[in-house]
Amino acid sequence: MDELLQRCDAYLAEHEAEHLGLLQDFLRIPSVSALPQHQTDVQRAAEWVAARLQALGIPDVRLLATERNPIVFGQWLVDPTLPTVLVYGHYDVQPPDPLELWETPPFEPVVRNGRLYARGASDDKGNMFAALCGIEALIRIIGRPPVNLKFFFEGEEEIGSPSMAAAVRQYRELLACDVVVSADGGMYGHDQPSLTLSSKGICACQVDLRTASTDMHSGQYGAVIANAVQTLVQLAATFHTPEGRVAIAGFYDRVRELSPEERAEIAAVPFNPDEFLANVGAKMFWGEPGYTPLERAWTRPTLDLNGFWGGFQGEGIKTVTPCEAHLKITCRLVPDQDPDEILSLIEQHIRTHCPPWAEVQVTRLPGSARPFAIRRDHPALEAARDVLRELYGKEPLMTRVGGTIPVAELFQRELGADMLFFAWGMPDNRVHAPNESYRLEDFRTMARAYVRLLPRLTRSSARR
Amino acid sequence: MDELLQRCDAYLAEHEAEHLGLLQDFLRIPSVSALPQHQTDVQRAAEWVAARLQALGIPDVRLLATERNPIVFGQWLVDPTLPTVLVYGHYDVQPPDPLELWETPPFEPVVRNGRLYARGASDDKGNMFAALCGIEALIRIIGRPPVNLKFFFEGEEEIGSPSMAAAVRQYRELLACDVVVSADGGMYGHDQPSLTLSSKGICACQVDLRTASTDMHSGQYGAVIANAVQTLVQLAATFHTPEGRVAIAGFYDRVRELSPEERAEIAAVPFNPDEFLANVGAKMFWGEPGYTPLERAWTRPTLDLNGFWGGFQGEGIKTVTPCEAHLKITCRLVPDQDPDEILSLIEQHIRTHCPPWAEVQVTRLPGSARPFAIRRDHPALEAARDVLRELYGKEPLMTRVGGTIPVAELFQRELGADMLFFAWGMPDNRVHAPNESYRLEDFRTMARAYVRLLPRLTRSSARR
Repeated sequence: MDELLQRCDAYLAEHEAEHLGLLQDFLRIPSVSALPQHQTDVQRAAEWVAARLQALGIPDVRLLATERNPIVFGQWLVDPTLPTVLVYGHYDVQPPDPLELWETPPFEPVVRNGRLYARGASDDKGNMFAALCGIEALIRIIGRPPVNLKFFFEGEEEIGSPSMAAAVRQYRELLACDVVVSADGGMYGHDQPSLTLSSKGICACQVDLRTASTDMHSGQYGAVIANAVQTLVQLAATFHTPEGRVAIAGFYDRVRELSPEERAEIAAVPFNPDEFLANVGAKMFWGEPGYTPLERAWTRPTLDLNGFWGGFQGEGIKTVTPCEAHLKITCRLVPDQDPDEILSLIEQHIRTHCPPWAEVQVTRLPGSARPFAIRRDHPALEAARDVLRELYGKEPLMTRVGGTIPVAELFQRELGADMLFFAWGMPDNRVHAPNESYRLEDFRTMARAYVRLLPRLTRSSARR
Repeated sequence: MDELLQRCDAYLAEHEAEHLGLLQDFLRIPSVSALPQHQTDVQRAAEWVAARLQALGIPDVRLLATERNPIVFGQWLVDPTLPTVLVYGHYDVQPPDPLELWETPPFEPVVRNGRLYARGASDDKGNMFAALCGIEALIRIIGRPPVNLKFFFEGEEEIGSPSMAAAVRQYRELLACDVVVSADGGMYGHDQPSLTLSSKGICACQVDLRTASTDMHSGQYGAVIANAVQTLVQLAATFHTPEGRVAIAGFYDRVRELSPEERAEIAAVPFNPDEFLANVGAKMFWGEPGYTPLERAWTRPTLDLNGFWGGFQGEGIKTVTPCEAHLKITCRLVPDQDPDEILSLIEQHIRTHCPPWAEVQVTRLPGSARPFAIRRDHPALEAARDVLRELYGKEPLMTRVGGTIPVAELFQRELGADMLFFAWGMPDNRVHAPNESYRLEDFRTMARAYVRLLPRLTRSSARR
């Protein structure tokens, strides 16, 4: 290990109590973006982060206005011949309820058994602060960052980042960079480092179907006028094959097939099927034939019926023939599916399959996001892999995310910069749930990992 | 016209104002069986009817206790060699709301333009009182009824007659009769007399399906664990053929096919398809192929999806893969389908078609009723036809009811007596709706029809 890293590690060890105290200050601010009554707390958290960047010596720190919550932006451009790395994170947190399930209050952070407990301890205050600690160590020891640094800490991640698309477009010049490193993300397990290669995109619509202008008496009309629930049931049943493939024409046309190498990578990830099923109380797996559960969860697109309603839902009998029925659909998309194109295919399918006795309307819902994948041969991925191998003494797993991380694709599209997920969220951290925590050991590891990663992001390894 | 009928008609004309006054007294009692706050009014209405029977000279009048509201029972057995006719009706009414849509208050009856307006004016206080007026005329002119008479006026019809099955069984001996004449029912139109030949039976169940113990994140689980809404959608889509037949094995096995005569009878009924569709705002008919809309509405069984719910129903997107979904089903049954047998076939179908990844539970709901049909060659039907032909100078239509009249089948099963529907409810009377009314002309005609019907129900024509 070279001397720089040794000195940085020593700095981090020396300042650990101080850093932990600062993180607890940060966690005491209830910056719940979903709740209007915490709006001033959200603002306060942004200011806290900005002040922290200034304390690190970042020369240019600003709050960038958006339609909603400010972006904490900072930059320290040390040398035009060095690459520019943008560090991403978010200072807002999920609502803490149900409060009664917390062992200690969510905004009064405490350490128990080597873990820090608080809302945001892991997602994302803990992780983004750990990244800042690593950067602080580098700055203190070298006197400046080892690369050109930019910071982008948003305050809307927990409400779906509604203003980010417009803001990233608006500040495109200011945000220009070679690579984005996200301090929001996770590892497969405490002793199992991993690197996230992709996340799914999403698109959504609502289907409203009508067969008459009024609900009908089932004795008078049930045999004569179409039942809207039955009609929508029969229409919705055409969306999948009995085997579990999506049956919308063209749905899979742009889907990249897995290479043998990718399948081997996924097969190498430890996966306990019994535990997975027990976790949600399911008795068996389901889904598209020809793929393993992890392959499906991580790399295969879906069409999910998120909700269906129509007619009578009360106790007992109501002899109604319903005149309307409703369906919510979301699709999880994979490269190279396009949300708008998929919605068009769904609309086309519904037009084709809706029987003549019904009127059907498909409404596209906002919130579309494209799938994201870091280029499999991106040099930053190799750099991160080296760091993890060095810190853990083992090869990191190559994992993927079935969920959607809109900001990753947004940076890729608007800034031309791929995102490297490099954070220490763990499956047992209870993010979004009561008693969220962050293991202090993971906090230490993440700070030391940033110390090691940034110098490795040379221009050649940062640019894709 | 023989002298008896002439004298009865004269009696009715002479006492019309008195009768109308009495009916208005009856209508002032808000005997809403569905609303607990009207429980004493329900009791008061029963007592009013009992007093009325006593005023007619009925020697044996009683309130028969049931689990809920009393049956007003009366009998005048004049001659064991004469047939016994049981007159059925109900003294309870529907709730009056929405009150703001009534032009005059629902329990302050008024006459406007030859119509009496009030809740219950037609259904069923007006109709049952018209029957009593005809009977009164006969008693006053002859000195006694022309047949042995029994009365059965219930107070639970508008809430589905929950205590009647037990009550009819309990009082079977007391209720023994040759034929039941229902003063609850309708005509096809003011100038279009009709006789109701059948009503459909009913059975109901709820289907609860589960694929996991908790709702799931659609990114993590949507491609891997079955979606309960989708699974129930695909299961429910198997209940019908695409053409609109019920696809439950054995569902039609006991259904009596229509004879050419029955089809001709139904084809003879005037039916305006455009008006029918416009009435519910539907753009076309739907249903089992091979039958006309009226044939389907009156004589073909149905399986109706009354309600479906599962997952998210709010605004916007929720990326949930639902773990449970629910479905309400009712079937309208025709002779000789049996409610319990049909429910067993549905359960069997669901067991066969439910995929292995789901747990499904079918719960039978109370409220089953068997289909009813008066024997096509029942002599009482012939007697009623003669009366209608005499009063209207035209042949009555032979009609049927797509709805369910449980009491008809109940009397048939428990007492061995068929029910003749003989009442003057009209399509434009707005029963169950605001501004219910009863045309005074129909009131007069119904009373005169009872004067003519009862003497015609000789033993041979009353017994089936």
